[in-house]
Amino acid sequence: MVQTSTDVRTTAWSTTTIAGYTYGTSDVPPSPVSLGDLDLLKQSVLFGPEEEDWLRRAGEVLDEQAEALVDHWRGIIAAQPHLSIYSAGLDGQPNPAYGAASKPRFVQWVRDVCRRPYDQDWLDYQHEIGLRHTRAKKNRTDGVESAPHIPLRYLLSFTAVIMTTTKPFLTARGHTVAEVDRMYDAWCKAVMLHVTLWAEPYASPEDW
Amino acid sequence: MVQTSTDVRTTAWSTTTIAGYTYGTSDVPPSPVSLGDLDLLKQSVLFGPEEEDWLRRAGEVLDEQAEALVDHWRGIIAAQPHLSIYSAGLDGQPNPAYGAASKPRFVQWVRDVCRRPYDQDWLDYQHEIGLRHTRAKKNRTDGVESAPHIPLRYLLSFTAVIMTTTKPFLTARGHTVAEVDRMYDAWCKAVMLHVTLWAEPYASPEDW
Repeated sequence: MVQTSTDVRTTAWSTTTIAGYTYGTSDVPPSPVSLGDLDLLKQSVLFGPEEEDWLRRAGEVLDEQAEALVDHWRGIIAAQPHLSIYSAGLDGQPNPAYGAASKPRFVQWVRDVCRRPYDQDWLDYQHEIGLRHTRAKKNRTDGVESAPHIPLRYLLSFTAVIMTTTKPFLTARGHTVAEVDRMYDAWCKAVMLHVTLWAEPYASPEDW
Repeated sequence: MVQTSTDVRTTAWSTTTIAGYTYGTSDVPPSPVSLGDLDLLKQSVLFGPEEEDWLRRAGEVLDEQAEALVDHWRGIIAAQPHLSIYSAGLDGQPNPAYGAASKPRFVQWVRDVCRRPYDQDWLDYQHEIGLRHTRAKKNRTDGVESAPHIPLRYLLSFTAVIMTTTKPFLTARGHTVAEVDRMYDAWCKAVMLHVTLWAEPYASPEDW
């Protein structure tokens, strides 16, 4: 059977072998953010149907590079003790088991950004990811002992890395400069949308 | 006298005519963030001497376009009621006087991003700008009645607009694609650095 674009997307959802990846399951609590709130946020980042299309195309380019992208980001984290401490043991020593356990979810995140519909399941899972950065849920998924909370300032500042370092990866398939720019634009908007949702547990409901 | 690059920078600091622009004055409370913390944040966004150089060059391109850039952003805000409410009166009606009063500071912010040294004065003023988005200080600078607080989710999501819409403006001086990309990269990192600092009042000290 010839695999169509739709098949590829379906394949991406066959992720039951990723430990702790609970997307779309009853293990994920409902997001306090409504789909109406999400719609306003999509407007705020200027993310419309065109950006959605370019993000899908970015996903086609990033799919096979998703692991290399995560390795690249983790190399940047590993080189900065104030960042690597959040994936290290409580003694500050690297914890390869933690890194190995969380990596497939990080790789899957790259694919999900580009391919998932931004619906209720997606919204709920962004809430879950946000919680997993904070003292509410960090370390529990993998049963590890590590720093209990990633400060908001590093969540936000590292977003600059997640965005900007992706640009060269988007050139891998020979798209024109203009096409890469559109994919990159959609990627940056989508990443900011994710991080905005992940920031929700850090502020009081009336402040967020 | 021939104006050198240094003179241009000096000229940019002659901003005493901007009402409410208190950069470098004793009206600005000290930031709770130390210069050491700032250094870690600069590392986290991968903002080093090269980025600083490209940001200076971006500033040369954006300087004369700073007002047009702010007008562009404000047009995007005006078109979205859930964003424009934060610059409107309490009755939801536009408040042109508020917009007119705050605009020169917004324009100056574009120039400051690109030209100011990121020192203690700069750090303190980012704290002040952060506070001016929140119920701690919003509306006081201009003595207006408006919504008392900009939610974190709109501060963060609109950052995507501040970043991505600047790209076309960076092409105005005929730089190569590669040069524009470097300027844009530095701009995005610098903007994320600013917004990370502005987010500080939204979270508890142990969470930020």
